Amino acid sequence: MSDRPETPLLDTVHGPADLKRFSDAELVRLAHELRTETISAVSETGGHLGAGLGVVELTVALHAVFNAPRDKIIWDVSHQCYPHKILTGRRDRIRTLRQKDGLSGFTKRSESHFDPFGAAHSSTSISAALGFAVARDLGGACDTGHGDAIAVIGDGAMSAGMAFEALNNAGHLGKRMIVILNDNEMSIAPPVGAMSSYLSRLYAEAPFQDLKAAAKGAVSLLPEPFREGAKRAKDMIKGMAVGGTLFEELGFSYLGPIDGHDLNQLLPVLRTVQARATGPILIHALTRKGKGYHPAENADDKGHATAKFDVVTGKQKKAPSNAPAYTKVFGQELIKAAERDSRICAVTAAMPDGTGLDLFGTRYPSRCFDVGIAEQHGVTFSAGLAAGGMRPFCAIYSTFLQRGYDQVVHDVAIQRLPVRFAIDRAGLVGADGATHAGAFDVAFMANLPGMVVMAAADEAELVHMVATAAAHDDGPIAFRYPRGEGVGVEMPETGVPLEIGRGRMVREGQGVAILSFGARLKEVLDACEALGAKGISPSVADARFAKPLDRELILKLAAEHEALICVEEGAVGGFGSHVAQLLAEEGVFDNGLKYRSMVLPDIFIDQASPRDMYAVAGLNAEDIEAKVLEVLGVTEIKSSRA
Amino acid sequence: MSDRPETPLLDTVHGPADLKRFSDAELVRLAHELRTETISAVSETGGHLGAGLGVVELTVALHAVFNAPRDKIIWDVSHQCYPHKILTGRRDRIRTLRQKDGLSGFTKRSESHFDPFGAAHSSTSISAALGFAVARDLGGACDTGHGDAIAVIGDGAMSAGMAFEALNNAGHLGKRMIVILNDNEMSIAPPVGAMSSYLSRLYAEAPFQDLKAAAKGAVSLLPEPFREGAKRAKDMIKGMAVGGTLFEELGFSYLGPIDGHDLNQLLPVLRTVQARATGPILIHALTRKGKGYHPAENADDKGHATAKFDVVTGKQKKAPSNAPAYTKVFGQELIKAAERDSRICAVTAAMPDGTGLDLFGTRYPSRCFDVGIAEQHGVTFSAGLAAGGMRPFCAIYSTFLQRGYDQVVHDVAIQRLPVRFAIDRAGLVGADGATHAGAFDVAFMANLPGMVVMAAADEAELVHMVATAAAHDDGPIAFRYPRGEGVGVEMPETGVPLEIGRGRMVREGQGVAILSFGARLKEVLDACEALGAKGISPSVADARFAKPLDRELILKLAAEHEALICVEEGAVGGFGSHVAQLLAEEGVFDNGLKYRSMVLPDIFIDQASPRDMYAVAGLNAEDIEAKVLEVLGVTEIKSSRA
Repeated sequence: MSDRPETPLLDTVHGPADLKRFSDAELVRLAHELRTETISAVSETGGHLGAGLGVVELTVALHAVFNAPRDKIIWDVSHQCYPHKILTGRRDRIRTLRQKDGLSGFTKRSESHFDPFGAAHSSTSISAALGFAVARDLGGACDTGHGDAIAVIGDGAMSAGMAFEALNNAGHLGKRMIVILNDNEMSIAPPVGAMSSYLSRLYAEAPFQDLKAAAKGAVSLLPEPFREGAKRAKDMIKGMAVGGTLFEELGFSYLGPIDGHDLNQLLPVLRTVQARATGPILIHALTRKGKGYHPAENADDKGHATAKFDVVTGKQKKAPSNAPAYTKVFGQELIKAAERDSRICAVTAAMPDGTGLDLFGTRYPSRCFDVGIAEQHGVTFSAGLAAGGMRPFCAIYSTFLQRGYDQVVHDVAIQRLPVRFAIDRAGLVGADGATHAGAFDVAFMANLPGMVVMAAADEAELVHMVATAAAHDDGPIAFRYPRGEGVGVEMPETGVPLEIGRGRMVREGQGVAILSFGARLKEVLDACEALGAKGISPSVADARFAKPLDRELILKLAAEHEALICVEEGAVGGFGSHVAQLLAEEGVFDNGLKYRSMVLPDIFIDQASPRDMYAVAGLNAEDIEAKVLEVLGVTEIKSSRA
Repeated sequence: MSDRPETPLLDTVHGPADLKRFSDAELVRLAHELRTETISAVSETGGHLGAGLGVVELTVALHAVFNAPRDKIIWDVSHQCYPHKILTGRRDRIRTLRQKDGLSGFTKRSESHFDPFGAAHSSTSISAALGFAVARDLGGACDTGHGDAIAVIGDGAMSAGMAFEALNNAGHLGKRMIVILNDNEMSIAPPVGAMSSYLSRLYAEAPFQDLKAAAKGAVSLLPEPFREGAKRAKDMIKGMAVGGTLFEELGFSYLGPIDGHDLNQLLPVLRTVQARATGPILIHALTRKGKGYHPAENADDKGHATAKFDVVTGKQKKAPSNAPAYTKVFGQELIKAAERDSRICAVTAAMPDGTGLDLFGTRYPSRCFDVGIAEQHGVTFSAGLAAGGMRPFCAIYSTFLQRGYDQVVHDVAIQRLPVRFAIDRAGLVGADGATHAGAFDVAFMANLPGMVVMAAADEAELVHMVATAAAHDDGPIAFRYPRGEGVGVEMPETGVPLEIGRGRMVREGQGVAILSFGARLKEVLDACEALGAKGISPSVADARFAKPLDRELILKLAAEHEALICVEEGAVGGFGSHVAQLLAEEGVFDNGLKYRSMVLPDIFIDQASPRDMYAVAGLNAEDIEAKVLEVLGVTEIKSSRA
């Protein structure tokens, strides 16, 4: 494209080895080019922009000093990995980010040997790096050889319990490994450079122990504006005193804070660490999310996730929406429910926007709790709230609820506490790919005694399910709904609590019955339309509940049709499995029933549009149509009649 | 019983309110009586002894100062709750601990309103207490009213990420709540009393701020032997500097360390805290596990878990075993495998003894990793080891693997890394009850793409499955096996890797086929013996694999029998559901098959012997026999023929 930035240095980089021939001054220019290239690429693809811009210099410095893939650079969460991908041989595909058949928006082992450990969920990098370090010292054979293990982790991710567990273990083992704390919520005041650069040179020139001592004294030596910044950093990453006390207590050497946008600090510090580190070391770098691109820096979310945009204006190009997003419907309905019931409160694990609880938090700040990236605590905290007489809605994406599963079983289900789980991002999610798929929640929730499990067929159903959950005092209840916009159905004025364990007939037909659980209902109805042209008119029911099942409805459908097909946006073990268990126990299979259960296939599905992902999964209207025809074995006859 | 201890003061205690009329001196005597009663009770029942003995004085002090059930006392893990149960109206049933229809070995909401939050898995108490504190301040209605929320948590439990997440959140919210850090690994040197008592009185008499200052200076004021103890405490709970820096950084006031066995310290400190605390406060109490009972104090595990024993000698009364325990078989076979393959290493989350890895760790100390109570980290650390070329066996009980589920999905399965999961305590576990049941692992593991899932039918099969896992380089693999002893089969000389996805015929019969997955096989065979007397001879197969399924075997069984019954020690969604999915997709149900899937029922089953628990579950031989008769519909005819 003609409006792509000029990147003469970057154009000569085909892999990290090419960085070794640049002078430090050239690396500074390279970083500038890398930033413009990142902005340009994301303007075409959309994606996570702010995080990548915050680590441009860090990425250049790491690849200039260390030797990937022998050295393992592990990006935590890894939505900041676009600059890393550009430098590691994937620049030619960088404008396919998050697209079907394109580059993943995250690091991915199968994509490149420069991605030693894939990520996408937070706070795993230190555990993984420790694994590499220990494997190295045990003589494990790694395709790419063994060198340093380096985890790059944000301050938010560092607050999760898992990171604490990993630090605790790494400090105990004492292996050489490097953790870079990318403290990127910091807003560094401009006059940060001089003193900090001085300290940085001090690090490089002093023996390691002195360097450490210098680092410890850093804050008091800093000019006033920086001290204020350091204080904010301290407030933010609570418990981690600047000076590194916590990390030192855990057995790490601590270096910092340093300016993570200044290569004149980063390069000497990393070189020193590479040359001299013996045990675990933590480098505390202060960076700015969205750095170097004003529309991102000035945005509330620092350009965290963006649609395609105009590079000059920063204006995002979003398609107009036809229907309200499920997330927003949930947020709005929860507010209405909370107006009627003062016991209702809400819990999110660092996703107030993503879960729609930002609306709730604005309306009811004292009843809304963001616990941080801490799903384990979030679930048990919800259980405690419920035991104390409140009625918490614990809003966690399907994929992240896997992080709090034991707490769901143990603290909520066994105790039958009235916690309401709002499970967003159920099913396949699109650009975030396999790592964010909500595939397993029905299976892992519906076999818990006493748990009620619902799925919304559309945005109107979601309204009623929020009301149902709000009215359900007898134990826990969960409702799942997909990412994105609804299907455009008429919205009810108010939510009306559903009868627990009752589905609904959507369409009366004959021969074959389709029992839908969740938002595939529209696809089911589309399939019926196509089948109608072939003279086939299925009955369709919306199960609404995977638990308890609507026994009456299901047994009636089985009795009155020769075939029964279940459809759900989840893996085997979920809704269809519960239906099969019921049918088996009732002896329905004894005399024959053409029973099928359409579930997610036994593969992890790469990113694409949700529709394309469901095509791979075989769960779109045409797949449902084909399944009906196959089960009835009447394809030829019907089509010749048509 | 005539040899029960004399407990004149305790005999007058019917609930915590009765403690209010005792003088401090009487409370000291009461604690002594409570200790002897606890020892006497556990000598009759077996159970967790050491932990309870370590908190006798703390239990007395908490109930003397606070007002349960209005004040919520939450025991973390809660295996230390026996003294609490004795003081809260359950003394008359204390000798039914962990028995069928008796008291639970843990706190349990349904058992007593003095148990505001049940436990059994570690590190949940601070989250729960915060929930109560927030609910109180939001005006939540609680049956027992709202007072203080008090979490009592051990130093081991405090090292788990979840506890860190909860502290982080609690400090931020700033609500009044109390965390008692029961630092019970400490071996307090005898001359601890004087100085510490002095400090304790100082706390009580000084204004709160001064008290805090005094607490901070405590260590330097202590006599030498205690300083040494404090240093060890510091080393142990790494990162938590004595003086409480970490807790203070997290927003807690810190008090301690104090002698948790000295009521002259505990009572004034708790009274002061009760009278004056405003925000979150942490009290650091040093205690000794097994305190006051020499056989426990002198045991390696400090009397952690014991069989029935003789009070005078401390000698445990264990029934002689007829077959090796699965746990030990696993440990031994892993050592053999590691002798052949230097890539094999092992990871446990604070359960080296329970998982059998103590043997492995003795043989291969550099290849054995105890990561602490940190299942999330443990799983991802294993993934990192695998990515680095090692072949880790990650040995975590079924119930605790729920804590690392997201990491299994995300870091292991999606990346297809060769981590081998050794899942002990599969199925129902006996005295530990519902909280420790391994009920859900087959369901939550077998629907992960690329995961191989096996279950051992007996101890010889386990030998082969360890060998199978050791030989499986193409992605992750898991094998589950029950708690306790094997069934006494002949043991193979060496393990031979099984063909992946192949089951085995165990018994050729006709009419009905029983497909067993896991250790119910013996019950299945016993059922067949009984059925033989009625002229019924089922075929029996051991599936070995829930994933991949042995399609050929299953379809052959279905084709050659009128009925097929699956049997497993797990909840719906697991093995039987995968079989049903296969049969449905293959059209086997179309023309009729008497298919049944025997799974754990939809209830949490209280503690009893495993056999009694399986009777409740309906999975013993007689239940399998009854199911065969019911499915064949030939009960009357056959029994009259017999």
